[in-house]
Formats: sequence, structure tokens, C-alpha cells
Amino acid sequence: MERFDIAVIGTGPAGLEAAITAKVRNKSVLLLGNKGSSDKVSKAHTIQNYLGLPNIPGDEMAKAFLNHAADMGVEITEDKVNAVYSMGNYFAIQCHDGDYEASSVIVAAGMSAMKPFPGEIENLGRGVSYCATCDAALYKGKTAIIVAYSAEDEEEAEFLAERADKVYYLPQYDYVGSLGGNIEVTTGVKPEAIEYKDDQAILTTDGDTYSADGIFILRQQIAPSQLVPGLKMDGNHVEVDRSMATNIKGLFACGDITGLPYQYIKAAGEGNVAALSAVSYLADLKKSDN
Amino acid sequence: MERFDIAVIGTGPAGLEAAITAKVRNKSVLLLGNKGSSDKVSKAHTIQNYLGLPNIPGDEMAKAFLNHAADMGVEITEDKVNAVYSMGNYFAIQCHDGDYEASSVIVAAGMSAMKPFPGEIENLGRGVSYCATCDAALYKGKTAIIVAYSAEDEEEAEFLAERADKVYYLPQYDYVGSLGGNIEVTTGVKPEAIEYKDDQAILTTDGDTYSADGIFILRQQIAPSQLVPGLKMDGNHVEVDRSMATNIKGLFACGDITGLPYQYIKAAGEGNVAALSAVSYLADLKKSDN
Repeated sequence: MERFDIAVIGTGPAGLEAAITAKVRNKSVLLLGNKGSSDKVSKAHTIQNYLGLPNIPGDEMAKAFLNHAADMGVEITEDKVNAVYSMGNYFAIQCHDGDYEASSVIVAAGMSAMKPFPGEIENLGRGVSYCATCDAALYKGKTAIIVAYSAEDEEEAEFLAERADKVYYLPQYDYVGSLGGNIEVTTGVKPEAIEYKDDQAILTTDGDTYSADGIFILRQQIAPSQLVPGLKMDGNHVEVDRSMATNIKGLFACGDITGLPYQYIKAAGEGNVAALSAVSYLADLKKSDN
Repeated sequence: MERFDIAVIGTGPAGLEAAITAKVRNKSVLLLGNKGSSDKVSKAHTIQNYLGLPNIPGDEMAKAFLNHAADMGVEITEDKVNAVYSMGNYFAIQCHDGDYEASSVIVAAGMSAMKPFPGEIENLGRGVSYCATCDAALYKGKTAIIVAYSAEDEEEAEFLAERADKVYYLPQYDYVGSLGGNIEVTTGVKPEAIEYKDDQAILTTDGDTYSADGIFILRQQIAPSQLVPGLKMDGNHVEVDRSMATNIKGLFACGDITGLPYQYIKAAGEGNVAALSAVSYLADLKKSDN
């Protein structure tokens, strides 16, 4: 498998700046995220204080950022990261559509406004999972609940339903799909809490209670501490020092995920620092290999 | 005297971004520096990794930054800061052309490539000074040496020479001036070390030795620890935390002065954080006043 020098997770200002700076330093870069940058940028009204781009609407800023990345030959790989594991001198990056390897990782995944449901974190790995296709093989003859946040999740439901006996699909978005067969779609219910009892995962919603062998929560974004096992947090944020280093050697973080203020230019500045710290980490790694 | 909410020292990316963000937050801002931004920006060749401004020549980037500041109604006051003193709940800012007051200060003065001469810091305040016009009154009937770094310093020499008996003027730039009278100009000598002995300041150069009552070193930039008495340093850089706070309450720092990497987007990002930290400091200050 190709091992990238630097994997960057996130395509907001922090991730794009990190990727650009890594490219300037001649590193091979895997940039994972959304080809449209981040919603937080593209859907912003007008940004007044990104120095050099006065009074710019969010969609124009996103375009300027993406054009800059494209100019530099930075490509975006659209895939959802499920987990990042430190393997000592490299990282294994488990994505929805495949796995990758990189010598260092920069997490610039932004802040999810969504809080985990009560019971979600406690039951992660037994009743709760974030990737239906990853775990599908384990669901032969079993039942599953999917809490879905985008139309793309319908494919996951179909894939899972090929193995599972029964799938309860609870879309949290404007559902106009045509799922059927052993998939039971219920719209308009809001999940409230998760329990795990007698080998069954139980989801309480504002309307009903669902029970199955497992629950898949297909959020667009995973909490950083779930994304990277062992990652040290400072409240809801990843703990970093001034070089953007986390507690995991070779893994850096930047942007909203490291804390307030949630500002575009702050995020971009941190992306730059994270990339240069990763470059210097790679140089040390190379030295210690020789 | 008008007391500004925030005084920003420096007009590179860090200072300009700080001023813009402070303005967005409706604070009154005194921005001290150079109307042409910083030489480090305007004289840069091409910058590749300032996200949103791909492949931009330094002079164009300086223009983009200055236009942004002008758009936001941020004005630049061209004055040289000699010292910043914390007065408890405000700061006194002593400049070449006058004094100012501000409730908080953001130091974004960049890094001088120039190291102090051996003996310079040790003799500061007795044999060595950085502002000839400030101290001129003390030089009636005395002698002085001026180490000068720009043609503007010739005015300082003339002003000092009106009081002093004799002024030795050692230009470290391309001198094409016409100083005369009791000002003795010697071009092409490089200062090497400073001593203070028997009430006389002695300057050793690569050519000769000069002795006088005092030496004025008119650098464009003053070392931060000299600029702000009591400011805690980390080597050559101002020590800051992730909120850009220094050890002095209400005084923040950002940009190259806080450490590597010396990158434009890193500086701008830090300027943003410093401004928002100052805004939050001002809110706390207001609360404690009530």
C-alpha cells in the first residue's frame, strides 16, 4: 500500500492550508474530505476579517480556497474517515471506501455541533457503531437500527440489509428515498437515548422504542476522541501545544477542533503550523530510521 | 488623552489582522507602524501558501492587506514605539512623536534579524539609548554617538546636535545626506561592541573606537524585552499561550515575534486570536470596573 507522507483529514480552511503547505514542502499528501470544502465556509454569509479577502461571501471564499488547492495540485479524496490508528512509525486510516497509510496525520475535521446521544459513547463497539458497511458481515441473520443523516446513507442501509434480517432506518434528513423490502423506514422521529441490555441495543426516540442487535449512527462527523483512540482532549477540543502537536506522536490537529475562536483565518494559520510541524516530524522520523 | 480600547504595534499580517478583527468587534483601535505594511511582506518574492491568495507577489499581497484594512476604516499611525508601560488597568505607549494610552496592547512587531551588540543590553539606560529626540534635553554640552539605520535618523541627529556639543554619526545605510557643523559623519564603519567605563560610553567598530557621554542605536525595531519592560521571553521570542496572552495582563503578542514558523498565514491567524483575546480581556476589565 502507498504510504503517504501526510494525511490531512478535513477540507475546511485548516485542512486546505495544511495540504497546501505540505505540498510546498514537497510532501505526498492524502487530503480526505469534501470536494466542496466545508459547509461552515461555503454556507457562511459574509466574512469580514479574513485578511486579504475583504467582505467575501462564504461560497466565494470556499471557491478561492479550493481553486488555490487545485492550483497547487492538491486533490481531495472524498471518503469518510472512521478511525485513525497509530501503528508506531505510521498511521492506519480506516475509511468508509478503503484503508490508507500515512507517516503522519493532521486532523482538521472541524467541530460537530452535534452532541452524542446519552448512552452512545458508553456502548460504542458493542451496541453502537458508526459504519454500517464496515460491520455488515457481522449482521447475518441479525437486526439493526440505522440513524441516518444524509441520502448517501441509503446505500449503506441497502448494503447492510443484504446481510441483516431486518433494518430499521430512521432518517434525520428530508427523506425522499425508496428503501423497501426488509428495511423499515420511519421518518420524523428524533433519537433520544441509547441503552444496551441483554445483548440488545435499545434506542429510545420521541415517538417509540426500537430494539435490535446493533445501532448504526451515520453522522457526517465522528467525535475526535472516537476517531483517534487515545487522543487527549481538553473538554470538547483536541488538546494541542503551540506546534499543533497532540499527545500522539506524529499526529497533529488544527482548526476549530483545537478550540475557540472558531474563525477561518485562525484555522488556516493553525493548518500552516501543523503542516510544518508534521514536516519536521517526518525529518526526525527519517533520521531515526537510518 | 483619548484612551484607545486596543493599541496594535506592527503592520505586518499579524498586526493588520488584529486591527481588522478588533474593528469588526467595534473596538477603538490605534494601529502603529508603517503605512506600507512590513518590508517582509512587500519585498517578498512570491508567496505560495497564503490560503485564498495563490502564488501572489509580496507587493501585491501587501496591497491586498492594506486595502482590506482601509476598507474596514483601519488607519495606520506612522510612529516608532519606544516603550510600552503597564499602568495597571491601562498601558502608556511612548512613541517617537508622542504618547498614547490604550486599555490593552497587541505586540505584532515582527522579528528583527539584527542581534544586539555585545554590551548593548547591559548598558541600556546608562550609556545606551534608542531615541535621540527623547533624551536630547539631557545632552546639553555633552557628546553622543549615533548608530543610524535610515535616512530619517538624520533629523534625529540634527535635533540632538542643537543641544549636544558634538555628535558622531555612523550611518549603517547608503548615506547621501548633508549633515555638518558639530555632527561628524563617518561612513563604512561597523559597530562591534559597547562598553561603559568612567561615565563614558565606548563604541568599538571595525575601524576605530568612539567615546562619548552616550550612544544612540536608532534601529527600526527594538527588542521586545526592551520595548515592554518585564515582558517574559522564550529565547528571542515573546512567550505566549494559545490565547496569545503574554505574562503581562492585557498585553498580547502575535506573529513572528511569538516564534517559528515565520509564515504570513500563521501570523494573520495569531493576530485574529490576539484581537479576540483582547476583546474578551476588555469585557472582563469593564466588569471589574463596575
